Amino acid sequence: MLMLRAKPPESWLPKVMANLDAVLVDHAHLERKAANSALSLERYQELFGLVSDLNAIAIEELEHFQLVLDILAERGVPFSAPISSPWISGLMGSIRKGRREQVIDHLLCAALIEGRSCVKFQLLADALGQVDAPLAKFYADLVESEGNHYAAYLLMAKEIDEPEANSRLDYYLDLDAELVQQPSELPIFH
Amino acid sequence: MLMLRAKPPESWLPKVMANLDAVLVDHAHLERKAANSALSLERYQELFGLVSDLNAIAIEELEHFQLVLDILAERGVPFSAPISSPWISGLMGSIRKGRREQVIDHLLCAALIEGRSCVKFQLLADALGQVDAPLAKFYADLVESEGNHYAAYLLMAKEIDEPEANSRLDYYLDLDAELVQQPSELPIFH
Repeated sequence: MLMLRAKPPESWLPKVMANLDAVLVDHAHLERKAANSALSLERYQELFGLVSDLNAIAIEELEHFQLVLDILAERGVPFSAPISSPWISGLMGSIRKGRREQVIDHLLCAALIEGRSCVKFQLLADALGQVDAPLAKFYADLVESEGNHYAAYLLMAKEIDEPEANSRLDYYLDLDAELVQQPSELPIFH
Repeated sequence: MLMLRAKPPESWLPKVMANLDAVLVDHAHLERKAANSALSLERYQELFGLVSDLNAIAIEELEHFQLVLDILAERGVPFSAPISSPWISGLMGSIRKGRREQVIDHLLCAALIEGRSCVKFQLLADALGQVDAPLAKFYADLVESEGNHYAAYLLMAKEIDEPEANSRLDYYLDLDAELVQQPSELPIFH
């Protein structure tokens, strides 16, 4: 359904499972940044008609951020500085300047970040099932929301210019596939 | 209570009353930017322990943003591009670089924006009382929240370094008093 063209390396899941505390901090920042991203999208005139939808996404991300902060507090893990993700930087760094190009690319990057989180949250939920049932449920519960945001952003891009959005989606699916396979030892989701 | 040292010019209220539709659009952007500001503050390590409080403020601002968007929709006023505020730019442009200086200044600017909104929402609510009771109630209801955010940001700055926060507050109260009295024909709150 998500059309992704590659899987994360085999080393991804064991790395995440071995660094759960750090990965939870990274997840907190992901939600915070996702809210920021929705708010940035509200600035494009092309999306003024969809500003309520973007705002609903931003609020949902901040509610998720709070849920992750609560889990950190329960576990006694301090909230700490974010670690930059080469995958996210790689996607975002390829956003073209120019209003129409920029908003379409920005929406597609936001969609792919949601889509990749959707897949990775499901992988983590499955792996956590035997080990930590409440955390497994937490991640399983987020999968649907990430998938909905993926679809919402994709649809917004297509509403602006469908052929252009399809052509750029093809570009971004290739870029994602290339970047997602790069092995990384960073204790982060992406 | 807010310690402000000057009043807006006499021309402010008639200007706002004569441009209510544009001022509502400006108000929507104010709420959006206030959420953005709370999210920016979450990035300072000095505030990591208060990140849940900042997040609660951000969510509240986005809920207010939605309320204003609903009022715009009811009135058939399209959401449109923001108009830059010389008063806000003047405050924010004086934020010093350097982490500790920067976070204290940023908090004080955020506090003053909330404080000024608190005063101006009350002035507008009073003026609207006879003209548009539902809108008057809407603004009167927001006054408390703006005042609470003002106090919250001020307290956060003082928790980092009370003497420095007091000294900079003195500076910012003077700067605000100077800037707020500049007459402006822009159809915006600040």
